[in-house]
Order: sequence, then C-alpha cells, then structure tokens
Amino acid sequence: MIVNEYKAGREFVGRLDYGSDLFLSLLSLVREKDIETGVVEVIGACKKSVVAIYDQDKKVYHNVALEGPLEILSCTGNISKIDGKPALHLHIVLSNHEGSAFGGHVVEGTEVFAGEFYIRELLGPTLERKRDEVTGLNLWG
Amino acid sequence: MIVNEYKAGREFVGRLDYGSDLFLSLLSLVREKDIETGVVEVIGACKKSVVAIYDQDKKVYHNVALEGPLEILSCTGNISKIDGKPALHLHIVLSNHEGSAFGGHVVEGTEVFAGEFYIRELLGPTLERKRDEVTGLNLWG
Amino acid sequence: MIVNEYKAGREFVGRLDYGSDLFLSLLSLVREKDIETGVVEVIGACKKSVVAIYDQDKKVYHNVALEGPLEILSCTGNISKIDGKPALHLHIVLSNHEGSAFGGHVVEGTEVFAGEFYIRELLGPTLERKRDEVTGLNLWG
Repeated sequence: MIVNEYKAGREFVGRLDYGSDLFLSLLSLVREKDIETGVVEVIGACKKSVVAIYDQDKKVYHNVALEGPLEILSCTGNISKIDGKPALHLHIVLSNHEGSAFGGHVVEGTEVFAGEFYIRELLGPTLERKRDEVTGLNLWG
Repeated sequence: MIVNEYKAGREFVGRLDYGSDLFLSLLSLVREKDIETGVVEVIGACKKSVVAIYDQDKKVYHNVALEGPLEILSCTGNISKIDGKPALHLHIVLSNHEGSAFGGHVVEGTEVFAGEFYIRELLGPTLERKRDEVTGLNLWG
Repeated sequence: MIVNEYKAGREFVGRLDYGSDLFLSLLSLVREKDIETGVVEVIGACKKSVVAIYDQDKKVYHNVALEGPLEILSCTGNISKIDGKPALHLHIVLSNHEGSAFGGHVVEGTEVFAGEFYIRELLGPTLERKRDEVTGLNLWG
C-alpha cells in the first residue's frame, strides 16, 4: 500500500460553463492553478455523457455513450501528475429521467448543462502516475 | 467559469434524527450554524425518498418517488446563498434491496432511517444563486 | 440531532494493493494510523464485490454479491469508534461493463483491482457507536 501524508492547500469552489466539457474544463483549471495533488467533487447536470469502463482482462477501456439529459449525482476523484503535468482522475454517477443510475471513469465527452465543483489542494509528496504492468493502468508507483 | 478561492472554516460531523427529513434537517442545521459556503456529505439509509430530475428542455423539475427501504450510497453537494439565506444543493445516490442504484436532486421527502453527515465550512467570497436564463436554474452568477 | 465540531487533522492519499480487500485494507490503515474520527473517499475498480443492504423491518443486513469486473464510482464514509477501536463506515457505488450502477454498505468481500483513497482526520469529540434500539444499527449515541 502507498500512503502519503499531506497538509492543507488552497480550496476552490466554482461553476463550470454551460456547454463546456466536464473533464477538459476541470483539467484546464487544475493546470492553470498548478495544483499538483488534490481531491475534486462535482455535482450538476449534463446534456450527454461518455464514460469509460475498464476491461480488466483485455486491459483496455471501452466507452459507453449515455444520452442525456442526465443529472450528475456524484463525481469524485483526485489530482496527481503524469509525465510531469497535473492529471485528473474522476469517476462519475449519473441518473436518467427515471432516476436510474449509471456511471464510469470520466473521459472527454460529458457536456455540461450546469456544474458546481469543489477542489481541495493537498501539499506534500508528489504522486506520479506510471504504467502498472499488473493492471495496465497508470497508477501511483 | 467562476472560480473562487476559500480558506478552511468549521467542520461538523453528526447524526440526523430517525424519521426526520434529510433535506429539511440539514438546511435547518446549516441556517442555525450560519454556514454561508461549504460542502456536505451524507451516508445512511432512508425509509423512502423523493428525488427531482431536471427537464432541460421544459426547464422544470419533475419528482420521482422511490419507495424504501433504501441505502443512501452517496449524498454530496454544497452550501451557498439564495435571497440572502444559506441554501443547500445536494444530489443523492440510493440503492434498493437488490442493490440497484437510483438518484437525483434532493428535495423534501427523503425520510431518514439513519443518516451521518460531514459539513465543511469554507470562508471567502459569497456565492449567491440567481435565476440563470439559459438553464432556468438558480446558479452562481 | 447530534452535531459535533472538529478541527483539521492529518490528511492521507494513497493506493490500495492489487488483490487486497477494500474494507479490511482501509480498516487496517485507519487502526495503524490511529485515526479516531475522519472521512474517507475511494475511487478505483474491483474484481468483484459484496455489498450489504439493511432490512429495516427485520433489522438485519443481507449481502448482495456483485460479479466483476466493476468500476468503483464512489465510496464515501466516515471513521469513528466502536468498542474503543477505530471503525469504518463506508457506502459504495459500482458500475458493471454496461455502466449500470449498483451499491450498498461496504463489508468484507470487495477485491481491489485498483484503488485510490483520500482520508481526512478530524480532531475533536469522540464518536462512539452503540447499538440503537430503534434501528438495530450501531449508531453514534
């Protein structure tokens, strides 16, 4: 197990733009603010979404397109580094018009209808993602 | 994009009363403690729930009644202000007796069986909700 | 309602081992670090999972076995004490290969494929779980 200890950094609350891409907007913000490590939360709604699900045997993600409108019930994850740049790892839970829930790994393709985020920066050891041979994922090594 | 920076405020952990209304209890607490900005998390179980789903075309919420018992798998959101008073924006994920997940925007109607909350106050710029013409929602402007 | 106020404690970010048990690994970490009160978040993926759903009438949990692979969309909860030792209360949301979401109360039986956690310690009043007669659950009393 890897266990790092951190001190409190900056904290941000804000609103994503209508029509923006959830993942790209947050990634852009994280890089602009130069947040190396942190945690993220988002709630809101989107017009449509694409989530990725990992095939643990084949070691590839496949995308699932979810037609909207959808509520963003939960979207949580973390900020660390990959190739020396801030990277975002987010998982999302969405619901359709009947309330049924779906979700996966957040990739490009979630079009924001309304989005409210909370970002908490953590100061301490750098967490750098590298390809892990066992899982095929980019994990902290 | 709106991006505000905050400093750490008070932090609360506690238990909601059996039979109380999830949304009204938390809103009442937030107003009593005069928390202007913050984030909220809840887990627990409820006897029944009503969640709201936004119709992005018609710009109205419709309610979905979920018969219980239900586990509260996740309930996250934020505190900001509306008409000068603390307001709560929460989204919830619930599961039925088979583990299937459902959810939406939290409104009055979720009857607590057991509920454990975490509230983190943030000190900084006031976030005030106002009607947004594009979406029809009360958003930070 | 029980409402306690806390001060910020230590914060940890880390990675769970491949093949480890989600609940037992985190519980072991929490006890090793002697975290009395706090909040926890995890995202990742698992090979399979067992979640518990509470039967509010019969006052017993029943387990639902979820065959993997599954994404861990959200896993949030808290740390308090039971019988004088740190205890973990976590709820999880998972998705299958189609993105459909399921979840429940986390017990032993969720086999980690990849897991990234955030733990935030809170310093203040001890929260001790004791059997609550009304619900049959171990709640803060």
